[in-house]
Amino acid sequence: MTGTERFERGWEKLMEVDGEGGKRVVDSLQAVAPDLARYVIEFAFGDIYSREGLTLQQRQLVTLAALTAQGGCEPQLQVHVNAALNVGLTPREIVEAVMHCTPYSGFPRVLNAMFVVKRVFEERQLIEEV
Amino acid sequence: MTGTERFERGWEKLMEVDGEGGKRVVDSLQAVAPDLARYVIEFAFGDIYSREGLTLQQRQLVTLAALTAQGGCEPQLQVHVNAALNVGLTPREIVEAVMHCTPYSGFPRVLNAMFVVKRVFEERQLIEEV
Amino acid sequence: MTGTERFERGWEKLMEVDGEGGKRVVDSLQAVAPDLARYVIEFAFGDIYSREGLTLQQRQLVTLAALTAQGGCEPQLQVHVNAALNVGLTPREIVEAVMHCTPYSGFPRVLNAMFVVKRVFEERQLIEEV
Amino acid sequence: MTGTERFERGWEKLMEVDGEGGKRVVDSLQAVAPDLARYVIEFAFGDIYSREGLTLQQRQLVTLAALTAQGGCEPQLQVHVNAALNVGLTPREIVEAVMHCTPYSGFPRVLNAMFVVKRVFEERQLIEEV
Amino acid sequence: MTGTERFERGWEKLMEVDGEGGKRVVDSLQAVAPDLARYVIEFAFGDIYSREGLTLQQRQLVTLAALTAQGGCEPQLQVHVNAALNVGLTPREIVEAVMHCTPYSGFPRVLNAMFVVKRVFEERQLIEEV
Amino acid sequence: MTGTERFERGWEKLMEVDGEGGKRVVDSLQAVAPDLARYVIEFAFGDIYSREGLTLQQRQLVTLAALTAQGGCEPQLQVHVNAALNVGLTPREIVEAVMHCTPYSGFPRVLNAMFVVKRVFEERQLIEEV
Repeated sequence: MTGTERFERGWEKLMEVDGEGGKRVVDSLQAVAPDLARYVIEFAFGDIYSREGLTLQQRQLVTLAALTAQGGCEPQLQVHVNAALNVGLTPREIVEAVMHCTPYSGFPRVLNAMFVVKRVFEERQLIEEV
Repeated sequence: MTGTERFERGWEKLMEVDGEGGKRVVDSLQAVAPDLARYVIEFAFGDIYSREGLTLQQRQLVTLAALTAQGGCEPQLQVHVNAALNVGLTPREIVEAVMHCTPYSGFPRVLNAMFVVKRVFEERQLIEEV
Repeated sequence: MTGTERFERGWEKLMEVDGEGGKRVVDSLQAVAPDLARYVIEFAFGDIYSREGLTLQQRQLVTLAALTAQGGCEPQLQVHVNAALNVGLTPREIVEAVMHCTPYSGFPRVLNAMFVVKRVFEERQLIEEV
Repeated sequence: MTGTERFERGWEKLMEVDGEGGKRVVDSLQAVAPDLARYVIEFAFGDIYSREGLTLQQRQLVTLAALTAQGGCEPQLQVHVNAALNVGLTPREIVEAVMHCTPYSGFPRVLNAMFVVKRVFEERQLIEEV
Repeated sequence: MTGTERFERGWEKLMEVDGEGGKRVVDSLQAVAPDLARYVIEFAFGDIYSREGLTLQQRQLVTLAALTAQGGCEPQLQVHVNAALNVGLTPREIVEAVMHCTPYSGFPRVLNAMFVVKRVFEERQLIEEV
Repeated sequence: MTGTERFERGWEKLMEVDGEGGKRVVDSLQAVAPDLARYVIEFAFGDIYSREGLTLQQRQLVTLAALTAQGGCEPQLQVHVNAALNVGLTPREIVEAVMHCTPYSGFPRVLNAMFVVKRVFEERQLIEEV
């Protein structure tokens, strides 16, 4: 991968936000589509996440909602529930953000997302803090 | 419509958040499915929007993202871009929230949503403030 | 178009279920993709709608729900709300079927569908019967 | 959870329709988002399922179609194929309802749903009755 | 299953394109919905895949994109990545086709699809050829 | 907008592929979200469309399928049916590509897309060439 300024900025942001979960996605793409990993770093994190105008906590609220509403994004939700905690959203805020999607996306999408939230909270021993 | 406490709480919240746009949706349902309007008021606003744990500004970020990501929700986005302004999100924050969905939902969903944002900003003469 | 038995059976079923609305879709495809119209007739109506095991009223409940839940199918819903009336579902049953999708698909999908229902009922002067 | 009339009505309906499958979903939410379980009971079952205007069999046809068409709802389909049997739909009607979605939603959504149907029928030893 | 000409043509095409993966899907439907398998053969392969106007390689590019963009079609993607190789698309072309969906469908849909590509390439020991 | 190499490469590719339709989208974003236009140019066209490994004709087949399958992307389809013609796909190939999505995405998605194809062909007086 090339060491451009955009890539460096994206890599730092990816580490700050997604941490180990992000690194695992990048690593798992190396054998099949390393450029796709590079675009995640350069575009999603170097361009979009590095913008001003919203805090990282606000960006993670948006991310959680987009992934919940879209459906079929459980692996990405797993990374981004962790990311939401990493940037300082509380367990309660994460649960509320997912639950807030119910009137817009219906119970099935929200239940699928909430069970991912539950699994991450169990892994990080946060389940009592909700 | 019955005047239960839940309904009253939901109606006040609907007026605070969606204002005229919300009232128009409720009115337009009276001839065909008044109970659907009642559920919007009681469940979406009386239950969900009235919860603690997130500010109304945070809830509108989540709403904008869910509607953008889901696609085909342009009429609801029109109401909720107005709602986002009503609860105090800045034009810049609204644009950023929609743009933040790009890596998750792709350009078409985001373009469709952004053109709704543009139309609402033009109506409210906010287009220079972005 | 060829006059196979499957085509004939499909055409009769299309006329019985969708009537003029179905014929308009078929006609509008002749200049660009007549075979697509043929597949609608042969497969959707000659194969699927002609099966035993569900009544036409049950099939229209399923169709209304699938189109509501999927989103972005307002033109097809317009045809199939008419079809639902054609096969004997009451206005009340149609409204209830669409409203029943709310917990599964959320309010935006259901609102979009309900406004199609409203328009068809107005065209057929059924709006007081709901 | 509060013992309101709406909650009681919803709980009875949930038990009648979903039975054990519904109870398991409610239980699994207690540690992370008990209010989400309460809304399933109060809104989905206490409000929507308790309405008149459609039989429970008609409601389950609508539910099966919405979940099939929407995609990514296999866990909810598992509960609601059981529910469809619980309220008296025959195995044949369930298979037909899912198959009827093919022209509207395409083969992948229908295949994913049909394999859930198959698994439930095997568990309930109904596979020969189709 | 009946031995009509359309069925025969579809079966041959299914064997040519999907091979063993297609046969497994057909077999797994026999106990629950054999007619659904027949429609896959007759309509998807006997009608659509047997048309002129596009090569089988072009058709598989279209199939990969539709399944990637739609989401929740991982089992079908597994069959059709194999099919893409069977009709002569190179591993590189398959990776590029899936990656090309990123601006349209976003990273989560593309990542989910790419991990299916990776698994198929590993099974067929093609991972170094990308 | 900055005149980086990536931007220049993307702009040339956008002009080659989308032409006037692409320029209109870029222009219409200037007042509300100019950076979103820049990302379309830099990422979608400067990065993805400029890759080797697929011809522009293959890339447009993939694009048509992704937009058709996803639903709610009619404005983008309008641009990309024109783009498909611009890079040398024949009217017949475009119709076949959209029709090929039927077994995967169902008739409603394909009908919505085909009516966009029809409108573009009429505008470019290609309707007899299908």
